[in-house]
Amino acid sequence: MHSDALRYRLRGRGGHMSGKLHFEDFHLGRTFDCGPYRVTREEILEFAREFDPQPHHLDEDAAARSMLGGLAASGWHVCAMTMRMFADTMIPLMAARGGSGSREARWMKPVRPGDVLRVEATVAETKQSRGRPGIGHVVFECRVFNQTEQVALVFMTPVVATRSAA
Amino acid sequence: MHSDALRYRLRGRGGHMSGKLHFEDFHLGRTFDCGPYRVTREEILEFAREFDPQPHHLDEDAAARSMLGGLAASGWHVCAMTMRMFADTMIPLMAARGGSGSREARWMKPVRPGDVLRVEATVAETKQSRGRPGIGHVVFECRVFNQTEQVALVFMTPVVATRSAA
Repeated sequence: MHSDALRYRLRGRGGHMSGKLHFEDFHLGRTFDCGPYRVTREEILEFAREFDPQPHHLDEDAAARSMLGGLAASGWHVCAMTMRMFADTMIPLMAARGGSGSREARWMKPVRPGDVLRVEATVAETKQSRGRPGIGHVVFECRVFNQTEQVALVFMTPVVATRSAA
Repeated sequence: MHSDALRYRLRGRGGHMSGKLHFEDFHLGRTFDCGPYRVTREEILEFAREFDPQPHHLDEDAAARSMLGGLAASGWHVCAMTMRMFADTMIPLMAARGGSGSREARWMKPVRPGDVLRVEATVAETKQSRGRPGIGHVVFECRVFNQTEQVALVFMTPVVATRSAA
């Protein structure tokens, strides 16, 4: 299922401070697997009630008549789920200071109750900071798959990473 | 505070079905005011625990040492808050079928407990669907301001709108 991507496993090499990955470790094309995330009906409804109270995220009948074709999570909820998967895997690994935004988020397939999501986060761009030599920007392309290997969401997200010499 | 933008108020004209705004009504530059949204510490922590458990969204001391300079909401939480403001204003107004993603989201300023946010959603692009004559795409530029008129978040979001002839 993950045959064509370069896979990373932390090998406890201890080469860098605390064994974390720094800016220099994020080579273009390197891919990190995050997840899984199991989606429940209750959380779809809860998020929608709080943040995205459109009928197609709250009501089965309205959802069936909508372009979603049935109850589905808010796209912003799927982004939040993705953040959780990314955080669970990457925060322990990465000497990071936080994200600064996202680019080109496209909700490709509805995310439904019972779906099981995973993320492939691939290093798409890296850029050393000119003004701040201790940091660099790593842009991840995050592809979110459901349990049938359909891509549900794609976006790019830049993360500020510490350089190992810092 | 809103002096330079074209402001819209629904005037109960009833010109279109249900008095809602259709694709043709979204002229370039038209701006809609959404909000306010009052941000609480409890909801910042709750969202972070569920979706973005990074120390600078969960812990005052860690946040003070981070690039945020103090406890601040997850950027994805701010996106969700913005969705809520947009939904509260636009769903009652708009013959819309839903969103399809977002572009160029930039978290410009930290959003902190006690902040009061508002959104200016400006029509930045419109495009009639070639394949589906009954709909069109309206791209809103959403600028999220805090109570001191700093821009906290900017992003573009495309919404599928029904044409009035449909």
